[in-house]
Amino acid sequence: MLINGKPGDLIPFSDRGLQYGDGLFETLAVRQGRPCLWQRHMARLSRGETALGFPPSDKQLLEKEVLALCAEHDLAVLKIILTRGSGGRGYAPPSPGSPRRLISLHPWPDYPQTWYSEGIHVGICRTRIGRNRQLAGYKHLNRLEQVLARRECQDDSLSECLMMDEREKVICGTQSNLFMLQGNAIYTPDLTHSGIAGVVRELVIEIAGQLSIPLHITDLDRDRLMSADAMFVTNSVMGFCSVAALNKRQFDQKNIPRELRHRVEEACSTA
Amino acid sequence: MLINGKPGDLIPFSDRGLQYGDGLFETLAVRQGRPCLWQRHMARLSRGETALGFPPSDKQLLEKEVLALCAEHDLAVLKIILTRGSGGRGYAPPSPGSPRRLISLHPWPDYPQTWYSEGIHVGICRTRIGRNRQLAGYKHLNRLEQVLARRECQDDSLSECLMMDEREKVICGTQSNLFMLQGNAIYTPDLTHSGIAGVVRELVIEIAGQLSIPLHITDLDRDRLMSADAMFVTNSVMGFCSVAALNKRQFDQKNIPRELRHRVEEACSTA
Repeated sequence: MLINGKPGDLIPFSDRGLQYGDGLFETLAVRQGRPCLWQRHMARLSRGETALGFPPSDKQLLEKEVLALCAEHDLAVLKIILTRGSGGRGYAPPSPGSPRRLISLHPWPDYPQTWYSEGIHVGICRTRIGRNRQLAGYKHLNRLEQVLARRECQDDSLSECLMMDEREKVICGTQSNLFMLQGNAIYTPDLTHSGIAGVVRELVIEIAGQLSIPLHITDLDRDRLMSADAMFVTNSVMGFCSVAALNKRQFDQKNIPRELRHRVEEACSTA
Repeated sequence: MLINGKPGDLIPFSDRGLQYGDGLFETLAVRQGRPCLWQRHMARLSRGETALGFPPSDKQLLEKEVLALCAEHDLAVLKIILTRGSGGRGYAPPSPGSPRRLISLHPWPDYPQTWYSEGIHVGICRTRIGRNRQLAGYKHLNRLEQVLARRECQDDSLSECLMMDEREKVICGTQSNLFMLQGNAIYTPDLTHSGIAGVVRELVIEIAGQLSIPLHITDLDRDRLMSADAMFVTNSVMGFCSVAALNKRQFDQKNIPRELRHRVEEACSTA
């Protein structure tokens, strides 16, 4: 892995990513030596930098480092962490500060093939996701809610767990965005106050538009999900997974428009 | 500083404290080579460990390491960070996991003497503090809200800024707990859903009880604060600071019971 462009795997204790979770990250699929959906990940990283008041990072330098690290890797997971760097007494951030970039490669997870052929089983966790308009949407390093949610979801029969906010609106999976189909339309949770705006979620929204499939960004509660015709979750590594069952309620993935799924899968896996 | 008891200041990139803010911390005053309010800090750390599902740490070992590090330091700030350690794929924590303890000493901040003789000026920030019952009260490492709030508060005339939740109830300062006096009673925000339950806050509540001063834990909004007779903030390092003014509204610290202040100050600075 690379820390500010140099090989290494140790970071100073003073790094604000450790001290306060003061940073951002991106997780990307790597195929044939290249990161997938690079521009979309970099656009989200830039939005996060603005939200946190980081100076804009050099995306060309980052790309150069990433390509060097990914070369000769046919299939891997790339994680980019950008922290505010060291310094600043207490919570007050140094200005302008000197962010630290950490780039690492990880083995591709061995998701079972049935996730794609039959779909996954999901539950709903007790851990709630907080509401904060200023941080919602960004992939920042404050992820204790997801850690606690995931901790609940270690039942091997569940591949993902859905998280609700304190109003009991379903926001997302612990590591994915959620979509449901009803009639001829797609519905996905409003992320104005909670959750991470996934790059594959963005793709689904665009491709639904291209295919003239109505897509509504709205509040969804548990009862509404139970009345869906089909459901799917997305993220940059798992791609597009249909939901076979939510608790005991089963869904039929044949109700997912084939062309939508095909185009999303293709876009996700194109380096 | 010490990492798992050994001198060093580098931590592995894989540490979950960095990856997800998956950890806890404590900040203590050190006087005459000893940490102040040790038992109270350890009790809060233990509550945090339970909340996050960490195995309980060895507090005697921690105390031994802390005493070795603090020896010969007359006045300093001690920071203890306890992360879930390395490992676990994605958000799912390793079970039982092997937490990493980081102990560091820092210079005592040079707060102006007027903070204590005249009180401090405070503002209210726009950054909101999120609500999450499961994480409220604990001093965990997800502190981006405080970082963003503190970033707003870099006006030199303001020593602290108050944070509200999305219901516009005032919860705390960026690094302190808040109390107001009205008539013969003390009021302090309810931290069931947001904020950190400070060890000095706990002391204030106990000492108010000993002095038979009514103390109410309740919702407080901006208008209510403006109607206070006096106000003060507390934390383990600044101790007890009266608020001279909130925006342009001035408060008279003479309305703070002298005995309460005296006993809290004494307890805070006793090693």
